[in-house]
Amino acid sequence: MYSFKNDYSEGAHPRILNALMESNYEQEEAYGEDRFSLQAIELLKQRIGRTDIDIHLLTGGTQTNLTAISAFLRPHEAAIAASTGHILTHETGAIEATGHKILSIETEDGKLTPTHVKSALDAHTDEHMVKPKLVYISNSTEIGSIYNKRELQQLSDFCHENHLILFMDGARLGSALCSEENDLQFTDLPDLVDAFYIGGTKNGALIGEALVICRNSLKEDFRFQMKQKGAMLAKGRLLGIQFLELFRDNLFFDLAMHANKLATLLRTELSKANIRFLTESPSNQIFPILSNELITNLQSKYSFHIWEKVDDDHSAIRLVTSWATKEEAVVAFIEDIKK
Amino acid sequence: MYSFKNDYSEGAHPRILNALMESNYEQEEAYGEDRFSLQAIELLKQRIGRTDIDIHLLTGGTQTNLTAISAFLRPHEAAIAASTGHILTHETGAIEATGHKILSIETEDGKLTPTHVKSALDAHTDEHMVKPKLVYISNSTEIGSIYNKRELQQLSDFCHENHLILFMDGARLGSALCSEENDLQFTDLPDLVDAFYIGGTKNGALIGEALVICRNSLKEDFRFQMKQKGAMLAKGRLLGIQFLELFRDNLFFDLAMHANKLATLLRTELSKANIRFLTESPSNQIFPILSNELITNLQSKYSFHIWEKVDDDHSAIRLVTSWATKEEAVVAFIEDIKK
Amino acid sequence: MYSFKNDYSEGAHPRILNALMESNYEQEEAYGEDRFSLQAIELLKQRIGRTDIDIHLLTGGTQTNLTAISAFLRPHEAAIAASTGHILTHETGAIEATGHKILSIETEDGKLTPTHVKSALDAHTDEHMVKPKLVYISNSTEIGSIYNKRELQQLSDFCHENHLILFMDGARLGSALCSEENDLQFTDLPDLVDAFYIGGTKNGALIGEALVICRNSLKEDFRFQMKQKGAMLAKGRLLGIQFLELFRDNLFFDLAMHANKLATLLRTELSKANIRFLTESPSNQIFPILSNELITNLQSKYSFHIWEKVDDDHSAIRLVTSWATKEEAVVAFIEDIKK
Amino acid sequence: MYSFKNDYSEGAHPRILNALMESNYEQEEAYGEDRFSLQAIELLKQRIGRTDIDIHLLTGGTQTNLTAISAFLRPHEAAIAASTGHILTHETGAIEATGHKILSIETEDGKLTPTHVKSALDAHTDEHMVKPKLVYISNSTEIGSIYNKRELQQLSDFCHENHLILFMDGARLGSALCSEENDLQFTDLPDLVDAFYIGGTKNGALIGEALVICRNSLKEDFRFQMKQKGAMLAKGRLLGIQFLELFRDNLFFDLAMHANKLATLLRTELSKANIRFLTESPSNQIFPILSNELITNLQSKYSFHIWEKVDDDHSAIRLVTSWATKEEAVVAFIEDIKK
Repeated sequence: MYSFKNDYSEGAHPRILNALMESNYEQEEAYGEDRFSLQAIELLKQRIGRTDIDIHLLTGGTQTNLTAISAFLRPHEAAIAASTGHILTHETGAIEATGHKILSIETEDGKLTPTHVKSALDAHTDEHMVKPKLVYISNSTEIGSIYNKRELQQLSDFCHENHLILFMDGARLGSALCSEENDLQFTDLPDLVDAFYIGGTKNGALIGEALVICRNSLKEDFRFQMKQKGAMLAKGRLLGIQFLELFRDNLFFDLAMHANKLATLLRTELSKANIRFLTESPSNQIFPILSNELITNLQSKYSFHIWEKVDDDHSAIRLVTSWATKEEAVVAFIEDIKK
Repeated sequence: MYSFKNDYSEGAHPRILNALMESNYEQEEAYGEDRFSLQAIELLKQRIGRTDIDIHLLTGGTQTNLTAISAFLRPHEAAIAASTGHILTHETGAIEATGHKILSIETEDGKLTPTHVKSALDAHTDEHMVKPKLVYISNSTEIGSIYNKRELQQLSDFCHENHLILFMDGARLGSALCSEENDLQFTDLPDLVDAFYIGGTKNGALIGEALVICRNSLKEDFRFQMKQKGAMLAKGRLLGIQFLELFRDNLFFDLAMHANKLATLLRTELSKANIRFLTESPSNQIFPILSNELITNLQSKYSFHIWEKVDDDHSAIRLVTSWATKEEAVVAFIEDIKK
Repeated sequence: MYSFKNDYSEGAHPRILNALMESNYEQEEAYGEDRFSLQAIELLKQRIGRTDIDIHLLTGGTQTNLTAISAFLRPHEAAIAASTGHILTHETGAIEATGHKILSIETEDGKLTPTHVKSALDAHTDEHMVKPKLVYISNSTEIGSIYNKRELQQLSDFCHENHLILFMDGARLGSALCSEENDLQFTDLPDLVDAFYIGGTKNGALIGEALVICRNSLKEDFRFQMKQKGAMLAKGRLLGIQFLELFRDNLFFDLAMHANKLATLLRTELSKANIRFLTESPSNQIFPILSNELITNLQSKYSFHIWEKVDDDHSAIRLVTSWATKEEAVVAFIEDIKK
Repeated sequence: MYSFKNDYSEGAHPRILNALMESNYEQEEAYGEDRFSLQAIELLKQRIGRTDIDIHLLTGGTQTNLTAISAFLRPHEAAIAASTGHILTHETGAIEATGHKILSIETEDGKLTPTHVKSALDAHTDEHMVKPKLVYISNSTEIGSIYNKRELQQLSDFCHENHLILFMDGARLGSALCSEENDLQFTDLPDLVDAFYIGGTKNGALIGEALVICRNSLKEDFRFQMKQKGAMLAKGRLLGIQFLELFRDNLFFDLAMHANKLATLLRTELSKANIRFLTESPSNQIFPILSNELITNLQSKYSFHIWEKVDDDHSAIRLVTSWATKEEAVVAFIEDIKK
């Protein structure tokens, strides 16, 4: 049984485990003030090309989303998200549990545009309603699409004209930035968004998301928020060591490119086999539409999520590739489909 | 410079890193439903001697405290804690951030007695005040003391007679249970407390606390609470593998005994040198009272916390030993003190 | 300028002010333990025909909704509401501020059916999502529709089969129960819903909602919740005196019937003038669709809400009648429309 | 049975009820945008002597405290209060329910000094602890003491030097400002505190507290907070009419002076009878220490709170006078004591 279920089925890239081994006996400061974390943060600032940003290392996506969003908003302020947004669908009300409503917007491709955001602003006009204040986007999105630079620039401009915070969930940022269709640079991000994070968990780390706060007014006292939300590890070195290893050369991007390459292989070969897709997704998640019979057959050898019913005889499935996905498994899967 | 600052200055016991290495490429379910986590939970149930308990693996103490306490209480219910309790002093208001007041009680030794708890009950008599509902204790406590079986039995009886939940923070449970003065068995705990956790982070793991819920009425839907609070790891295997390694033989207790043995060595030798202690602490934290001059000298070679001022010329410091503390460092420290 | 803007434009029915005057110098207990409140609660229990219900007097709808819903739910549990529901649209995220998500469901007429609720249950299947637990309905709804007995019975049966709490916002319960189309009895309610409230503010009181908790498991410690949420008045007598006056004879229902009668007059006469309505609303709110030109003309003499744009030339307006609405104003309005 | 139990045992001053009567049928805007509320706010600004303050009318003390404090603080920020402070003792954890810890400080007389506040600042040094940000004081305090101008100036200076918000609970501000020992002017307050409120409920109104926000940075979007916390009345006129009546001449202060005068009569005559007091309280609450036998005798004719046990034979009771207290009742009480 081979799994295309997600990009966190295996452990970590071996270089990360080796780095943990090698540094294991060094005594270090706790709570993210260790030299590894400090170096990782410096390194990330260099890679992003900015010194005037704050970076914090947290353990997972839900934790990062809830810690950041609750830190950034006043009690009456709300987030806006695509209806497919992770904070709306798969975080058990984590944002609401910190007191904030999320306004849901239907989209075609999981991406928000100025028109979408404007519709939420227009519908919230007085103190009997929440005040939309933060725009949550994911890149890549939960359905595999990515923002190009023009789209993100337009959204950014609209947000800033309207005093909105633009926040990017980057749990799969590596795959987005390494997509063949991508024209965004890592160094563009601080100009475009107010805060974003760089997902390690889904790109080769054991755990770890690096939150980058670009807007000055959002930086103050963030470590208090982390501690309060249970997001500050005693052995913060665990996060520092991993990000140091991912970014001391091109490893982070190499891993994402591997995942993308195999997703592209799947996409290309399945297209050749006249298989349609639920969404256009140039990243490491693809959503082919298959007959239910074929799905049942495939399930005897592969595990994957059945995403949604398309018609009585067909469903879309989700296939996810990762840093650890084996090319031979992909090839075998394609052959099994073609049979 | 050698650090006695805490028990999380190093990485993890090498067997844990090896276990991560060996299992690294196995594809597994996410979110704690992997076979390692499931096996670790089964193993812990065996070691605790009960099948009717629920066990969940979380990453750190603050996270475990806030997730459990907010899950267990209704909005108007409060926790009771010793004024030295970690949730009161060093968690940035994490419990209050979930909506619950903590009632602080002064104690002599960091431990709560029925008399202490009764004073809180007596002071809270009607709906203009919070309703005390959960008694939070730590074992070992934040100042190194431990509960013996009789003390814990009395507190347990009082709590249950008064419909209170007894919750034990076991961030340093290993050191408590391995103390020379301890008479509590691991298997006694489910009879005495309603929930407790087994701290991995401070006893050789990279991260990880195993929360044990003993009372049936507290078990329902706990995984929802974990996800909502950002406490459910995508790669839950990281926690499962560690607890499996710690408990597949006696490693967890061996590590705690090592830490305790070196703390005892420090305590014994410093006592011989006529040094007094702030508290009686038969676990891996000791609090000798030293002259400020001596403290300054020691700081050139060792790092540790200055705990509190005792008089104009003396302060208590905190020395913490761990699974990784080297005996030769302890010996050198003792010699430096005696000089 | 005459206002049809809402049912809280005037003060209180004069009998209520007189009752306040007459009792003014009697010294009474505070915080709702005064004899007026106790008598009002007894009287309400008689009128509802049940002694095994708990009744609490609060000041307004948002306060009652947030106090009750947060008292009834655990952290991971969510409410389900029609997308037009007051808690979703016009309470500034009050429920989310207590930590709970509200799941929004599109409806045709502002009313929830078992099919609607089932769709929310079916979409929430595991711990990565909130757990739907409470069904929030309004009667009459925010768009003037009412539940008949069969509809409410079906919804009630479905909720109880699925372990859901059925909660009825009765800010306009008087108008609903006095509608010509209504077949629900006041005494039916405890059999059908787990909690509901009887709105005084919109039916002749200065302030005041009487919350009725029918399900035993929801009753415990509710006064703690009220105090914590700022919903317990020092001079609780202010609420008791009003409900005593509204229910010591038929005043509450007489006032609602007056409001409904004038709404019916408007509805009938406007229909005769071939005016269509946005929704069928047999209660004290009606939503005629008028040409924008006519609306502008009417605005010089009447105030009302423009509810929504229907097409480029037409909009729906909301007209609300109340205990205080004058028949001559309604007649004048009809004549002005017909002109 | 005559009650000295509190200052909210009766209804409202008759002029207030008359004002409600007279305005009853005027149609007005809802939610505090009625002409009465707007006029009351203008009038209060004149009386306070400042136009650059924001004023909001809320219904009660707990509600005002929780709405304001949660609006003013970020998630990790805490309030500091005297251990006798109402938010600490008698509001069922209302502030914690909004997510914020309150740091309790022991005082001699219920009043905070810069030294007290400094001790809290000194004890909270890093992100493992909450960040003290708001100083909560009551004037008069819960034990009847008042702040003089010099004390308040010193506290104000200290707070502003340390970037703390100074918030004054004025549930009994009338009595404080009308105390014989007072040297504070109503017009001094905006220079000294960042926000305060003017208590109506305990000084002749049915309900009502006027919150004055002096510091610009605290003003934004406050009406959103009110609505979200259930603190915005549909018939906001109820609050406006009352404050308009209390402040259109000297009524508010006349009522407080009446209460104080009778408290002084009690204090003076009891002192003459060699009765000691638990605290020095130059306002409308006094705390004489009586023998338990005498207390029992008095309870047959008077109701009051037994405040605390002083020794085995004596207890302190609390006597509260109000706008409605009858001089003959006070005289009779004194005579009964002296017998």
